[in-house]
Amino acid sequence: MNRIVVALGGNAILTDDASAIAQQKALADTSLHLIELIKQGYEVIISHGNGPQVGNLLIQQHNDASEKNPAMPLNTCVAMTQGSIGYWMQQAIMNAIAKAGLNHPVASIVTQVEVDPDDISFRNPSKPIGPFFDEEQAKIKSLEENCIYKEDSGRGWRKVVPSPKPLSILEVEAIKTLADSGFVTVCSGGGGIPVVRSENGYEGVEAVIDKDFASGKLAELLDAKQLIILTGVDNVYINFNKPDQMKLERIHISEIEALVAQNHFAPGSMLPKVLAAITFVKSGINKEAIITSLEQLKNIGHGAGTVIYG
Amino acid sequence: MNRIVVALGGNAILTDDASAIAQQKALADTSLHLIELIKQGYEVIISHGNGPQVGNLLIQQHNDASEKNPAMPLNTCVAMTQGSIGYWMQQAIMNAIAKAGLNHPVASIVTQVEVDPDDISFRNPSKPIGPFFDEEQAKIKSLEENCIYKEDSGRGWRKVVPSPKPLSILEVEAIKTLADSGFVTVCSGGGGIPVVRSENGYEGVEAVIDKDFASGKLAELLDAKQLIILTGVDNVYINFNKPDQMKLERIHISEIEALVAQNHFAPGSMLPKVLAAITFVKSGINKEAIITSLEQLKNIGHGAGTVIYG
Repeated sequence: MNRIVVALGGNAILTDDASAIAQQKALADTSLHLIELIKQGYEVIISHGNGPQVGNLLIQQHNDASEKNPAMPLNTCVAMTQGSIGYWMQQAIMNAIAKAGLNHPVASIVTQVEVDPDDISFRNPSKPIGPFFDEEQAKIKSLEENCIYKEDSGRGWRKVVPSPKPLSILEVEAIKTLADSGFVTVCSGGGGIPVVRSENGYEGVEAVIDKDFASGKLAELLDAKQLIILTGVDNVYINFNKPDQMKLERIHISEIEALVAQNHFAPGSMLPKVLAAITFVKSGINKEAIITSLEQLKNIGHGAGTVIYG
Repeated sequence: MNRIVVALGGNAILTDDASAIAQQKALADTSLHLIELIKQGYEVIISHGNGPQVGNLLIQQHNDASEKNPAMPLNTCVAMTQGSIGYWMQQAIMNAIAKAGLNHPVASIVTQVEVDPDDISFRNPSKPIGPFFDEEQAKIKSLEENCIYKEDSGRGWRKVVPSPKPLSILEVEAIKTLADSGFVTVCSGGGGIPVVRSENGYEGVEAVIDKDFASGKLAELLDAKQLIILTGVDNVYINFNKPDQMKLERIHISEIEALVAQNHFAPGSMLPKVLAAITFVKSGINKEAIITSLEQLKNIGHGAGTVIYG
């Protein structure tokens, strides 16, 4: 069985309309593409982002926080979006599987991802989260909460948190057990709930783990041969929309690392996906990472997307 | 292996302090009792309530709802509390297991519970949820949302939703697979996410499933011999705090059904637990339901609590 991890973006679930019904509709459409992998005989593990969803939740939690009903911290909010998106996703896939006459059970696993408390990102938090404040408010909150606020693209001040690399997935054995038993498993939502190991055991930390890196770690620990990172385009390009644009198809890690070194990929967008892909491919032998669109999932067995190999 | 389902109340997690840290502390304490079952060799499946947690979430969602950031419906909010409480619970149990030198993996499963759209409760919604309104607001909202608001104990008007009986647990095979592989499994939070089967597949409905009935259905479908319903007291009593009070220890369903018929149990409190216990015991042969306190879990193998048998 070819085990494959598919990383879906939170933006693919929430675009304009943040209502549950619209997000569920988006996931119903998404599921029609995802089951193409099941039809091709893949053993599918699905991870997903939660950027817009946890952002909205943090805003609601902040705006209506009171002593009696306090805002939940970021790690708990990530867990909440694992519940909501996991529910929507498992229901949508379950329904798509039934409609296609397939027969695979589905389950979502609440997933904690261990990070290193000495990860370099803790010294330089840079990932903006939650509501915007003016400079004055931001300074007060920064002192109150003992955390860092930064000006964000002229839109106001936001809290910034570290984005540490994933060390391990605490629930990987559960995911493996379910995958081994034929389940389509939804997990590692929002990059996972970030936890560190302390003398009292595991505990949550205020951080955000990149979902593509978490998905790569998941694929590595599950011994999956392939990691698919879904994005809005069928392939990675260099010099996109320029006369010399070039579509990347099958490419060795050494070649794409050279393109990374030449700054071909945008830091906030394609670069982290490419780096997560390279990290996964380097984690073992005969690994492939594929960056492509939902629409191309039906052609995964035929070389669709940008396939990075080692 | 003795498989046992333990139903924990949402009020046992949130009493006065609704902060994440206080709820996590409560679950850390709770876990010290829960692992007593593991030490006695039971295969443990944990379900939990979410009353105070989903209530708080519904209030925050309502108070800060906007077109851009709309309130999530009840079924999605239940899913969110499965994420948050599931995370807290699995982390707390994981830590307690490690500290006790035991070696059991833990996982939480997002759980949908199927209900019958023709369940009698849909004709007479009676379970109050979410924020309080004045009569005027309640009438407007009732029309806007096409649902029912009722006056609640002199405290204001609240939306009431149906509380249908659980028909099946959609993720029961996942829970079984994990339990069979030695996992301590957290599931069916808040009575499960209520769904109905429609021509388009499963979809969420606005309802609340009693967590003890859902736990009983779970125990039935998992073929567990025992269901433990946790409460604030070690045993069920009749004539509690009266001269003729009597502690119930081992009692046959026919005897306790007679006591139910004599109105010995309070409708909002012990009655639903007793009814859920009876329903489970009747679901098979050699089944036992135990109503007791967390503190008595260490004595479950020695007849602790009120043991209802068939």
